[in-house]
Amino acid sequence: MGKVRTSAFTVSIDGFGAAPNQSLENPFGEGGMILPTWYLGTRTFRAMFGQDGGGTGLDDDFARKSMENVGAWILGRNMFGPVRGPWPDHSWKGWWGDTPPYHTPVFVLTHHARPDLEMQGGTTFHFVTDGIEAALRRAREVAHGKDIRVGGGVSVVRQFLQAGLLDELHVAQSPVLLGAGENLFAGLDLPRLGYQVVTHVASPNATHLTFARRS
Amino acid sequence: MGKVRTSAFTVSIDGFGAAPNQSLENPFGEGGMILPTWYLGTRTFRAMFGQDGGGTGLDDDFARKSMENVGAWILGRNMFGPVRGPWPDHSWKGWWGDTPPYHTPVFVLTHHARPDLEMQGGTTFHFVTDGIEAALRRAREVAHGKDIRVGGGVSVVRQFLQAGLLDELHVAQSPVLLGAGENLFAGLDLPRLGYQVVTHVASPNATHLTFARRS
Repeated sequence: MGKVRTSAFTVSIDGFGAAPNQSLENPFGEGGMILPTWYLGTRTFRAMFGQDGGGTGLDDDFARKSMENVGAWILGRNMFGPVRGPWPDHSWKGWWGDTPPYHTPVFVLTHHARPDLEMQGGTTFHFVTDGIEAALRRAREVAHGKDIRVGGGVSVVRQFLQAGLLDELHVAQSPVLLGAGENLFAGLDLPRLGYQVVTHVASPNATHLTFARRS
Repeated sequence: MGKVRTSAFTVSIDGFGAAPNQSLENPFGEGGMILPTWYLGTRTFRAMFGQDGGGTGLDDDFARKSMENVGAWILGRNMFGPVRGPWPDHSWKGWWGDTPPYHTPVFVLTHHARPDLEMQGGTTFHFVTDGIEAALRRAREVAHGKDIRVGGGVSVVRQFLQAGLLDELHVAQSPVLLGAGENLFAGLDLPRLGYQVVTHVASPNATHLTFARRS
């Protein structure tokens, strides 16, 4: 059975995974686009959108591994888009255009039901209204034994950590201070939840930390 | 005029500078002695206590620079010792034996007055009961234009950050999770207080981050 994991999840030095006031113009909140700089420059990221070039090395190694062996994704609704409350219509289809970079089933956690949305390239968005355990169960059914990747955002990763459902968490800490936003660590006692640090390496752009849960 | 700075201040990945329950046996709190591992192995640290050996390289560079050009220190009372409340007597003389590694005046912030305490090797402890600004003023008077080093602990560094009195903060982030304790960053909006990241490098033992205040 595959792992349940979060990978390539960027936080600031002060622990924020997103800045305040997410919107269509600011998917990471105001000023938050500085967070994933390490990732946007990688060969792996560029290739996802059909572009050549980009960096190789440590950052790219983590970016590439984050995409390997993923059988299904789970996303919070704010990672899917900036729409809040009931869906006004079905016109919003994610941040990623017609061909999202998932190429697997993607389970979007929301309080508001919506029909499945099939995109090009193998991505289908399923909208799950009954919580993380239901989403995980449905993801397992379609992942063919591969990993389930919990993409974020912060509150979804925290829910998985608190429930002890995440086997592994790779955090890339960007060398920036945000000062406000959604904090990944605040109020979470990760050692008590069974997590410990297993890797710690740095590139000029980020410190890469992997936490695993003692089984 | 010298800088006011905190250097070689260790925090966990989740932002804790000390674990809970400091005591005579656990100066960094229970389980907190894992924090300064990067520092304890350096040549600089060993030399402070008259020992040979120890590592050179990045960690030692930061350890060494942290000690250079310091004209006076400011410490919170808990960094001076585990005694709480009024001093029962004057027998506690710090964690460091007869010859503390400061070799300068050291201003200890406390609510309880106590006579100056002159130690061997040039260290004199002065007990300051009227707050950080008074301590800083007195430190300036005796520092001969050298830097004032704010040694910690967490609450003292936070007070200096909040007051905008710290010019520079070097944090060594140890690759450990503590889960609880005194958090350096919680509730502080460092960018708003004028701080930004100026250096970011890592050794196998720590990620070294330097923050400076825009002047």
